[in-house]
Amino acid sequence: MDRGAEVLQDLRDRLAASPFHASLGIDAVDASQGRAHLAITATDSQRNLQGTIHGGVLATLADTAMGLAVRTAVGPERPHVTIEMAVHYLRPASPGRIEAVGTVVRSGTQIAYAEADVVAADGTLLARASGTYSTAAR
Amino acid sequence: MDRGAEVLQDLRDRLAASPFHASLGIDAVDASQGRAHLAITATDSQRNLQGTIHGGVLATLADTAMGLAVRTAVGPERPHVTIEMAVHYLRPASPGRIEAVGTVVRSGTQIAYAEADVVAADGTLLARASGTYSTAAR
Amino acid sequence: MDRGAEVLQDLRDRLAASPFHASLGIDAVDASQGRAHLAITATDSQRNLQGTIHGGVLATLADTAMGLAVRTAVGPERPHVTIEMAVHYLRPASPGRIEAVGTVVRSGTQIAYAEADVVAADGTLLARASGTYSTAAR
Amino acid sequence: MDRGAEVLQDLRDRLAASPFHASLGIDAVDASQGRAHLAITATDSQRNLQGTIHGGVLATLADTAMGLAVRTAVGPERPHVTIEMAVHYLRPASPGRIEAVGTVVRSGTQIAYAEADVVAADGTLLARASGTYSTAAR
Repeated sequence: MDRGAEVLQDLRDRLAASPFHASLGIDAVDASQGRAHLAITATDSQRNLQGTIHGGVLATLADTAMGLAVRTAVGPERPHVTIEMAVHYLRPASPGRIEAVGTVVRSGTQIAYAEADVVAADGTLLARASGTYSTAAR
Repeated sequence: MDRGAEVLQDLRDRLAASPFHASLGIDAVDASQGRAHLAITATDSQRNLQGTIHGGVLATLADTAMGLAVRTAVGPERPHVTIEMAVHYLRPASPGRIEAVGTVVRSGTQIAYAEADVVAADGTLLARASGTYSTAAR
Repeated sequence: MDRGAEVLQDLRDRLAASPFHASLGIDAVDASQGRAHLAITATDSQRNLQGTIHGGVLATLADTAMGLAVRTAVGPERPHVTIEMAVHYLRPASPGRIEAVGTVVRSGTQIAYAEADVVAADGTLLARASGTYSTAAR
Repeated sequence: MDRGAEVLQDLRDRLAASPFHASLGIDAVDASQGRAHLAITATDSQRNLQGTIHGGVLATLADTAMGLAVRTAVGPERPHVTIEMAVHYLRPASPGRIEAVGTVVRSGTQIAYAEADVVAADGTLLARASGTYSTAAR
């Protein structure tokens, strides 16, 4: 198994082992060092009263994509704990496939900074997120 | 029914009508103009692999508390759409009761700014959140 | 004068008319629709006690680049008032030339969202910024 | 000299030693453990083209108040380097006295989280800020 496939398999194993991520149906589409590409199928039950997908679902997906991107950068033996995250909502999200690509912008010895695009199946940008992660060994 | 009880009932009706909020078990504990106090019972299935409650759950609860606080300030006939939100995670959250108090700091004609405390049952501050909401009539 | 040169000239006129920007020596390097590229020469007197350029200087430069990028997108007749901005500091900045490129990610009828790179003369990424701007006609 | 007076004197010495803070005229009004209260006199030359004080001035003041609040909490021998900061602008600022009160919300072994109020002389809330600071010994 080459390095890219190993990284992707590690993310899939990790998502499968997490009841919360598994219950949301978060799937790892692709990964490489410093980058994690995830997808969910947003359901009717995740809509708010306006009929659009709740921002908390997009925030969760973005945080997961950024955290796993950090994991691919620092390695599975170091933690990636969210210190803070922010989401800017740009367009309403509808039920159906939603993808998030998390990218590490800077990874230091104790802190990593990542960003994420959240996009609809047709490529429309739904949200932009940023996050700071603690990666200090404990 | 006095004004405070009306506001609280409006939030409870709204949460009950939203499949997403209902599925998370978000309950309105108390409310007044510019303030919404919510609670959930976080479950084992909402834990991440570190065993703590996933940050996305806290972000969703905080966003809901801030949005509903805005609703109590601008009235149910105006929208409260999240433009951006940020969460700072201060301490790990465990399964059990988690509360969030959203407070409106500034409400203008088109934009409102709110903040939220997310606290454990014993009062420990778990996270601080802030958010900007569009309240322009559509 | 072609459209790009006109946009750049508008930004230069605006910066020159603002005592605050003029005092900081902010110069418009390049501009096009939805993008503003600025530069300053950071001085010894803008250093903090660690000897690096104070984060407030980078925040001001980034906010100006994002605001002017919004101006190029919505036109000079509409306002661009900062609702909120955030800066992530990635590497220490030294005295000398510092550039910022602001880019509009989403521009709606009332709100625009922009991001900025703050970079050293050698291209090193020093900070990433994001901001929400009110562009509603008053 | 009691402990509170010592903390305040340490902040005043630090501000005086920093050319950037001295040039902005930032003064320490009061301080205690986990809290720093600063003031500036904003000038006409710090106005933007709308005639209000530039947001970069408020961001710089808020960042300084939060950083110094962290300094009072962790002690002068540990660093307080801004990892990220955010500012929400709530009302336009006019020339004249502007104050900022920074408060530490959480201080851990390596990271501190602080918030700040930026207020006009009459107590009007102009902006709210938050920031994450690295306090790890180097």
